[in-house]
Amino acid sequence: MSFSFNQGILVTIICETVLQERLVQLLKTLGASGYTIIPAGGMGSQGKRMGDVAGYNTNIEVKTIVTPEVSDQLLEQLKQFQGNHALIAFRQNVEGLFD
Amino acid sequence: MSFSFNQGILVTIICETVLQERLVQLLKTLGASGYTIIPAGGMGSQGKRMGDVAGYNTNIEVKTIVTPEVSDQLLEQLKQFQGNHALIAFRQNVEGLFD
Amino acid sequence: MSFSFNQGILVTIICETVLQERLVQLLKTLGASGYTIIPAGGMGSQGKRMGDVAGYNTNIEVKTIVTPEVSDQLLEQLKQFQGNHALIAFRQNVEGLFD
Repeated sequence: MSFSFNQGILVTIICETVLQERLVQLLKTLGASGYTIIPAGGMGSQGKRMGDVAGYNTNIEVKTIVTPEVSDQLLEQLKQFQGNHALIAFRQNVEGLFD
Repeated sequence: MSFSFNQGILVTIICETVLQERLVQLLKTLGASGYTIIPAGGMGSQGKRMGDVAGYNTNIEVKTIVTPEVSDQLLEQLKQFQGNHALIAFRQNVEGLFD
Repeated sequence: MSFSFNQGILVTIICETVLQERLVQLLKTLGASGYTIIPAGGMGSQGKRMGDVAGYNTNIEVKTIVTPEVSDQLLEQLKQFQGNHALIAFRQNVEGLFD
């Protein structure tokens, strides 16, 4: 039995919902072929908890699978949002069925 | 201090909601002891963005933790859905508290 | 081009919603700087499927990024909930933009 699965980098971005359109545009610009968005609540950072401010689902979790090079570029580009918005992002190696 | 945590393979499947029952049945057939389902939106692939077609939550994210062997079988079995449905799946090693 | 990303341990906890406040308290006690909570359904374990009992979103998925030491402590502390509640938890190394 032999298996052939793709290798890629899963990038997860958790941030304020207000950034959604800008993130989608950034993903398109970088050539990411797909993404998933899930509403999220309760994220905290440095003592403030955003979920408390304006309701439960004020955050989103965005996932995309990209190449190592694109993951570098994506994380670098995301730094621009951190000054004015709550945002964390992280990456992991994954293997499976995806483009 | 000593810690004893289990080792397993986390498999994440992101696909059209219409596949939910078939996925659950497949997981049962393969002996997966549990799974989690989260509604998701905005997935895109090959130029089409499914979230745009019929509302926001037309996708689901299914997570299960299985053995390496079952993860092989699961990913192989999932290939059958890719011809007619949007579906991605990926796996990662995890460690922690689970069966 | 040089990149500087943080290293951390992503801990994901999937459990009954009733545990939410106790988990948040535990995360604060351990000094976790932030967390994200997403409603989840359909988790199963040992033959019972909790999502069937009282509706779809009776579970939550809690994510936090911590140090290796805190992830040890967190997983150890979570064992106390497993006797009376459905709960799984797992950890993974991640790299990216976070505190």
